[in-house]
Amino acid sequence: MWGGRFDEGPSAIMREINASIPFDKILWREDIEGSRAHVAMLARQRIVSAEDAGTIDRGLQQIAAEYERDGVPEDWDLEDIHMTVEARLTEIVGPVAGRLHTARSRNDQVATDFRMWVRTANRRAIAGIEAVLAALVARAEEHAGTIMPGFTHLQTAQPVTLGHHLLAYFEMLMRDRSRFADALVRMDECPLGSAALAGTGFDLDRDMTAEALGFAQPTRNSLDAVSDRDFALDYLTAASQCSLHLSRLAEEFIIWASQPFGFVKLPDTLSTGSSIMPQKRNPDAAELVRGHAGRVIGCATSLMITMKGLPLAYSKDMQDDKPPVFEAAGLIDLSLAAMAGMVARIFRSAKRTTLPGRP
Amino acid sequence: MWGGRFDEGPSAIMREINASIPFDKILWREDIEGSRAHVAMLARQRIVSAEDAGTIDRGLQQIAAEYERDGVPEDWDLEDIHMTVEARLTEIVGPVAGRLHTARSRNDQVATDFRMWVRTANRRAIAGIEAVLAALVARAEEHAGTIMPGFTHLQTAQPVTLGHHLLAYFEMLMRDRSRFADALVRMDECPLGSAALAGTGFDLDRDMTAEALGFAQPTRNSLDAVSDRDFALDYLTAASQCSLHLSRLAEEFIIWASQPFGFVKLPDTLSTGSSIMPQKRNPDAAELVRGHAGRVIGCATSLMITMKGLPLAYSKDMQDDKPPVFEAAGLIDLSLAAMAGMVARIFRSAKRTTLPGRP
Amino acid sequence: MWGGRFDEGPSAIMREINASIPFDKILWREDIEGSRAHVAMLARQRIVSAEDAGTIDRGLQQIAAEYERDGVPEDWDLEDIHMTVEARLTEIVGPVAGRLHTARSRNDQVATDFRMWVRTANRRAIAGIEAVLAALVARAEEHAGTIMPGFTHLQTAQPVTLGHHLLAYFEMLMRDRSRFADALVRMDECPLGSAALAGTGFDLDRDMTAEALGFAQPTRNSLDAVSDRDFALDYLTAASQCSLHLSRLAEEFIIWASQPFGFVKLPDTLSTGSSIMPQKRNPDAAELVRGHAGRVIGCATSLMITMKGLPLAYSKDMQDDKPPVFEAAGLIDLSLAAMAGMVARIFRSAKRTTLPGRP
Amino acid sequence: MWGGRFDEGPSAIMREINASIPFDKILWREDIEGSRAHVAMLARQRIVSAEDAGTIDRGLQQIAAEYERDGVPEDWDLEDIHMTVEARLTEIVGPVAGRLHTARSRNDQVATDFRMWVRTANRRAIAGIEAVLAALVARAEEHAGTIMPGFTHLQTAQPVTLGHHLLAYFEMLMRDRSRFADALVRMDECPLGSAALAGTGFDLDRDMTAEALGFAQPTRNSLDAVSDRDFALDYLTAASQCSLHLSRLAEEFIIWASQPFGFVKLPDTLSTGSSIMPQKRNPDAAELVRGHAGRVIGCATSLMITMKGLPLAYSKDMQDDKPPVFEAAGLIDLSLAAMAGMVARIFRSAKRTTLPGRP
Repeated sequence: MWGGRFDEGPSAIMREINASIPFDKILWREDIEGSRAHVAMLARQRIVSAEDAGTIDRGLQQIAAEYERDGVPEDWDLEDIHMTVEARLTEIVGPVAGRLHTARSRNDQVATDFRMWVRTANRRAIAGIEAVLAALVARAEEHAGTIMPGFTHLQTAQPVTLGHHLLAYFEMLMRDRSRFADALVRMDECPLGSAALAGTGFDLDRDMTAEALGFAQPTRNSLDAVSDRDFALDYLTAASQCSLHLSRLAEEFIIWASQPFGFVKLPDTLSTGSSIMPQKRNPDAAELVRGHAGRVIGCATSLMITMKGLPLAYSKDMQDDKPPVFEAAGLIDLSLAAMAGMVARIFRSAKRTTLPGRP
Repeated sequence: MWGGRFDEGPSAIMREINASIPFDKILWREDIEGSRAHVAMLARQRIVSAEDAGTIDRGLQQIAAEYERDGVPEDWDLEDIHMTVEARLTEIVGPVAGRLHTARSRNDQVATDFRMWVRTANRRAIAGIEAVLAALVARAEEHAGTIMPGFTHLQTAQPVTLGHHLLAYFEMLMRDRSRFADALVRMDECPLGSAALAGTGFDLDRDMTAEALGFAQPTRNSLDAVSDRDFALDYLTAASQCSLHLSRLAEEFIIWASQPFGFVKLPDTLSTGSSIMPQKRNPDAAELVRGHAGRVIGCATSLMITMKGLPLAYSKDMQDDKPPVFEAAGLIDLSLAAMAGMVARIFRSAKRTTLPGRP
Repeated sequence: MWGGRFDEGPSAIMREINASIPFDKILWREDIEGSRAHVAMLARQRIVSAEDAGTIDRGLQQIAAEYERDGVPEDWDLEDIHMTVEARLTEIVGPVAGRLHTARSRNDQVATDFRMWVRTANRRAIAGIEAVLAALVARAEEHAGTIMPGFTHLQTAQPVTLGHHLLAYFEMLMRDRSRFADALVRMDECPLGSAALAGTGFDLDRDMTAEALGFAQPTRNSLDAVSDRDFALDYLTAASQCSLHLSRLAEEFIIWASQPFGFVKLPDTLSTGSSIMPQKRNPDAAELVRGHAGRVIGCATSLMITMKGLPLAYSKDMQDDKPPVFEAAGLIDLSLAAMAGMVARIFRSAKRTTLPGRP
Repeated sequence: MWGGRFDEGPSAIMREINASIPFDKILWREDIEGSRAHVAMLARQRIVSAEDAGTIDRGLQQIAAEYERDGVPEDWDLEDIHMTVEARLTEIVGPVAGRLHTARSRNDQVATDFRMWVRTANRRAIAGIEAVLAALVARAEEHAGTIMPGFTHLQTAQPVTLGHHLLAYFEMLMRDRSRFADALVRMDECPLGSAALAGTGFDLDRDMTAEALGFAQPTRNSLDAVSDRDFALDYLTAASQCSLHLSRLAEEFIIWASQPFGFVKLPDTLSTGSSIMPQKRNPDAAELVRGHAGRVIGCATSLMITMKGLPLAYSKDMQDDKPPVFEAAGLIDLSLAAMAGMVARIFRSAKRTTLPGRP
């Protein structure tokens, strides 16, 4: 079964293991935005002519329109999103495309692109958290007087209100929100201008590109800038802790929806039935949210292991930074959306006075 | 930015979180093979008529041909590969397709499909290991007399031969091979017939389906059969340990290829150069093999966390079993192929007598 | 070999698995400080008499003096540090000791003790980081003009200065410092008064105990307060990222100290020799710092897994929160101390002009 | 707070980070047994005289008696168990003690000691599993006719028998048993004679020491023998999977013991009560078994991370191999003992006919 693979020879394997375009094409918006900021700065600093810069900028805009419409082509020979864009730009504007590479390396380019993507992912997580927070507050107000048994060790302990119980999750998610917010502050520096590892001799205006790309300031140390992935780890650890909180709420929904508990009845939109077992309402969404916590934590573990013991500056191992971040982002976004929906709908049928199973 | 997502409403989110077809469509061969074995058994046991079974089997063969040619369609409303196949079968053969579902549940179906896929992945890993073993032995024989410094703590300690050094990896990979082989023995039981969780009242011949699908015997306990993912964890832990060994060899290649060491010169097929720094030969493939170890271990961690504390029998969390296995399989297969290529080529330029840097 | 264990019967096993005193006795200072603050508040609120409170307080002070002098006794029948202190207090002051338990549960007590311990661990980590930062800055100034090869992919790329290289680690550790500082802000709330899970009917002054124990405010939600371990996870993830940075510097020291590189010569205080291989200076301390990263990340993973899917409020699983935190704290403190020492001494022998191996 | 630590100077920190005696003293039996086998072989091969070997052997026996009686002294200056034993031997028998070191290094010595310890831990795990298996079979026979609701998604699905349910865990634990057994086969090779990394010029009889220490054969490759920790990882991954199974059973016991389910009543020996909430029987032991799974998996992750990317042969990072193994062994042993006790007692009160909550 290996014959085919080895028949292709080492070049084919090398090309396959090297290619990041299958996953990093998701960075196309950030890559083009970064390139446009870079070439505008090169023009202002008179490192490239205004005319060349204009040509390049129009080419980049055309590529953005193409990708928006048709998706990003995936050619392993072009390895990654940076070379894919560059190759297309050359097709469109000719050799002047090469000027875009002035005073920039793929090392600072990818560090900038990825940081911008993760910045957006942090903001999206905060928005998702806020949707769950809003749902929690609304339900807590409705159920401020709904008595339910409070548990420790899953043993009924003392009566509490459902509102109070739900607000425990409000506290957890407020801490999650602050973690993503802290991460945004910490990553608010632009790596562009660090080049391969040692900066560049060109007279760049790094404040200009940093500002254009929405960063508070440029990074201070070029070796750090190209080999740092703390921003990705900050995102992954914040997502892990958030997923843990969601897994706890999901566990409660699953237990509460079991027939012996019967605290809540899952709406059809959030559960699946069984034709041969009509008494069942499977809490699929809650179970998937709980399961996703395992994968999000696995993603965080993955990147930590990959970064361990890497000497400065850039090493190719760091290409393995993206799949866990993209995967975790998809999982946490969907988990937050599902949980906001569940919180909003799961207590509709709960009476306002007393839940069954009271102590 | 969440507006769109929530505008779609909870049904859209539910559909998205529930859909496994984006990743489990890779199981299409196993799913169709399992269904063909099941329907043949149903016919033999006179649970469905020979004519219906024949109709269903021809339909399944047609679907296999379609998927082979055109790929598997991805419709989230059909959730997973099982329903995707079933829906297409109904289009082709009409209501008789429903007979296929007799005495079978998606729970034992997916357990069987996935187990078959993982069985193949184990065999592929063994084949990949054997390719590296062969390369190691060939190089070790060539370099049985090549003296090099032996290291502890990365300090030169005592002279060894390059052959002896390479055979240390032979030992590691032989142990890896035995782990995958042990896993194959342990998973050699067919879950089909366990149904949702409690078996079925039909008079099935489980030995027949087990044999048809290449298993030594049917599983013994139906609750275990549908909720067990040990076979996936066995694969992931074997892959993790194998990836650790490859990461150690990769680290050595990277250090040996550095200019101060200069023990090996990376062939062009296994490294990349830099136009502005022609002295460099970046050991990209070795770095990616080293980095991949982080992701493979992350995948193992992921599934362990997901399985923790799940009550019997099937829970939907277990849908999160597949992405880490598929990801790890892709990474370990490629890492083994790349490392076989590296071992085969990296010492071509090494002289047969003495490496530089001898003690 | 199991005979003995089972002969003891289930009570013996139960006592052993339940006992946390072997590891939580480290919390004795926090436990006594918390109890003193609690009883002073009870007295001010006239819930216990001033006389009883005085008696209890003197008893607690005596216990503190005893533990300081003789260590904490480890009696498994007393389970944990809270019961150990309480039992000794009863011996000293008699039945009045029971008043200390008014309006308090072990659930809010342990949440408070542990939070205070982790708060101190965060501050200690910051101090340890600052020691490394100071050493980095001092060496960077000395070596602001020392040219060395800059690496990417461990291939010599462009010349940089050693000072610039060291300041890359300054950036990393400044981010680590900010993570521990963020954690301190987030955990700055006192759980006391949350009782078992639902608060208490007594008229407590929670602001008073919060202030006495150095917290900015009391926690808001009682269910969250007793079941939250985010403060421990914040510490562990910050420690993990910090350990990753230290592992990278350690890897560089190990490579630089190898004979082919020869960039640095390890001082005798930071390495060990070999009587039969006198050419070796084993970089033991650097290797242990690199190895410790694995264990610190393992500790973070451990607590994440333990917390996954726990329903509210307190569950006994949460007793497994402490060993990974105590272990990680010991490892990161020692790693920072060792690395501060290494940075301070490792470049003494490096000439101020040019390192060997320049590009 | 760091003053004290730094005042002690780098030597103190170095001594502390280097010292493994606080945890590796647990290896004293294996260390002495290994030394006795080594010196007996040296005498047979006439590398040391019979008289010297006799003197050394008697000294080692005396040390064993001392440690058995008084415990192992913990002197950080003696670093590890090997030097601790050697130093005491020198006190007892004088300079002849040095002969013990002939043709042996701490690298092969610790690899042998640790392998022997892990071998015993594997056997202990198998015995612990067998105790749980016996309890499961006994309960399953008693409850072969006890009807209970079978669950999927924690929704009541179809009736099953309690006996059938319990035998699902029999299957899981039989797989666990086979994993520990496979590990024993794979580790059945003795590293002694590999010396520091390259073997030794002495005419050793490695078969003799291997046999004396209960190994099937000597290891084949000296570089691998001193840098391999697969045997520890095999143990940790087997323990992780076993702990996952126990966590699932523990979760079920916790849910079944909740008041709404009320399937089982926890005996007093396996639960704790609450004076102010007498209705509660907290399932502490089950919760701790569930929680311990997190720590066992954390230990496996820890050692995987530590081993990643280590060049051959021995590196000091590998000193971090022992704490996670010792911790996991304590946790899995206790979890198995507690679960055997729970399974044996938890169903005594369950009637033989029908559990409450039947579908």
